[in-house]
Amino acid sequence: MNKVIQLNNRPVGKPVLDDFKLIEENFPTTKEGEVLLNTIYVSVDPYLRGRMSDSKSYVSSFELNKAIQSAIIAKVIESKHPDFKSEDIVIGNLEWKEYQTSNGKTLTKIDKNTANLTVYLGVLGMTGMAAYLGLTEIGQPKENETIVISGAGGAVGTIVGQIGKLLGCRIIGITGSDEKVELLKSKFKFDDCINYKTNTNLATAIKKSCPDGIDIYFDNVGGKISDAVLSNINKYARLPVCGAISLYNTTEVSVGPRIQPILLTKSATMRGFIVGDFIDKFPKATKQLSTWLNEGKLIYTETIADGFENIPKAFIDLFDGKNIGKMIVKI
Amino acid sequence: MNKVIQLNNRPVGKPVLDDFKLIEENFPTTKEGEVLLNTIYVSVDPYLRGRMSDSKSYVSSFELNKAIQSAIIAKVIESKHPDFKSEDIVIGNLEWKEYQTSNGKTLTKIDKNTANLTVYLGVLGMTGMAAYLGLTEIGQPKENETIVISGAGGAVGTIVGQIGKLLGCRIIGITGSDEKVELLKSKFKFDDCINYKTNTNLATAIKKSCPDGIDIYFDNVGGKISDAVLSNINKYARLPVCGAISLYNTTEVSVGPRIQPILLTKSATMRGFIVGDFIDKFPKATKQLSTWLNEGKLIYTETIADGFENIPKAFIDLFDGKNIGKMIVKI
Repeated sequence: MNKVIQLNNRPVGKPVLDDFKLIEENFPTTKEGEVLLNTIYVSVDPYLRGRMSDSKSYVSSFELNKAIQSAIIAKVIESKHPDFKSEDIVIGNLEWKEYQTSNGKTLTKIDKNTANLTVYLGVLGMTGMAAYLGLTEIGQPKENETIVISGAGGAVGTIVGQIGKLLGCRIIGITGSDEKVELLKSKFKFDDCINYKTNTNLATAIKKSCPDGIDIYFDNVGGKISDAVLSNINKYARLPVCGAISLYNTTEVSVGPRIQPILLTKSATMRGFIVGDFIDKFPKATKQLSTWLNEGKLIYTETIADGFENIPKAFIDLFDGKNIGKMIVKI
Repeated sequence: MNKVIQLNNRPVGKPVLDDFKLIEENFPTTKEGEVLLNTIYVSVDPYLRGRMSDSKSYVSSFELNKAIQSAIIAKVIESKHPDFKSEDIVIGNLEWKEYQTSNGKTLTKIDKNTANLTVYLGVLGMTGMAAYLGLTEIGQPKENETIVISGAGGAVGTIVGQIGKLLGCRIIGITGSDEKVELLKSKFKFDDCINYKTNTNLATAIKKSCPDGIDIYFDNVGGKISDAVLSNINKYARLPVCGAISLYNTTEVSVGPRIQPILLTKSATMRGFIVGDFIDKFPKATKQLSTWLNEGKLIYTETIADGFENIPKAFIDLFDGKNIGKMIVKI
């Protein structure tokens, strides 16, 4: 039998294990023009929370009692498709199933000799695209500018910080544990990093770490952390909004200080995006990120959970900040 | 003696007459290299409220017991400056004084044969620049798009709406009286207009007037009106923030629904600006606006108050929406 994880309930507030259910279904049969895939790595990402609600979000909502989808790396174990052969490794937006068939339309073959296949879910995947394109296209960093990154220890944050350094900027991270603060400063070479959980006056702490103000705020979290950052932005600041993880699980509309007066007095630009907005720039981004990766200028860290049945727990752990870097489930 | 209006108190909340004082001072003497000016028209603008506070705003705060400044049209009545002669008409950022001297550095000569000199405070002045450049540079309207304008009956709003129509867009205004609703639809050819004071559910009213959603929101007011608009924006919406008149007089930080989740799910861009941000584009804007004006494609309306001592009242009236179009004081 084939294992499948479905959406059992639409989460109210923070997702719980009972919002998911593991079922078994018949093993799929491969039709002409299809491939049979065996899941190897599953990406769990905060944005999936939006698709679990019934509201309009980035993309259509997941259906109840249907398999959830995310970015997945899989191995072709049977091919009745001319473009794929057995043992090929592919990436695509696939279902949380151990085995599944695909007509190949949304699959991309990846080099199976890559030392670490998960790089295609991280630096060379949507994570890297969001980091590089959000920062360069919206943030438009100039040398010696100050960049503040919230969710700095996450998949996107760790990459944004390094890219900012490579582009000559001063990088300040905001994260949720002293362990992450230390790691971001030592391993990822952030100029400074703030633990938002232990700093009672975050706006003041940010001001201290950013004596020249903030030119770019790469926002992964929203909420009160962002309020504190916004009170320190410079004239003509750019504010890419990549995520709002602090708000994904709120059950009421979150309220906070209105930001229009700040944007107005600072002539600042705030822009939300998803990576798909920049699809025409993926080749350029991939080329640059690969180069930096090969030159050893860009490093990454991953949090790997183990086992198909642990996908929901890994996903839920994102909201407790239990990951450092990209959260991936190895099947 | 020369009449002067000074800042008497920093307003708390909505400005009152007592925040200003009319004093008399000695008549100025004109030194070598200076001109003596007689004030003809004084522009009163909502943004001046920011300069009356002690906080950082667009520009430096006005000083207590010093004359207030704004855009003023004046006549040269004596010149000891090679570039100006008696009877020249000039515009500049000048003081609320009946007579004043200037070294001419910030003065611009205007054509004294212009039928209506006040056009240089309105359509061909900072008002027109803000409307044209905010809409075209940030809003980037495309034919058949829907533009919503708050503060639609004000100086900037009436011009933004007409420019939007000239560029082939559908224009929806939001304003504060049935009289303005009627005028905006009949005289300024807005496609629809909503009275925010009489519509109990503004978001629903906006949705009804914008069946295809909102592509551009030209925001002059901020606050709850903007909340209602934002709940109806389309993917890739552009949101120029030109003013926030509903928030200028608040005594506490105004709170409202956080907008980051909306910007994120809609890949929308919100950008604050002041006209000075686009100074290099003033000649292009002036040329286009003059052309439309001469062709009769752009019309304007003004609210003219009378008498030097009435400048403070005219300014205060802005916050009650007593003006239609540009508010000007004729001296």
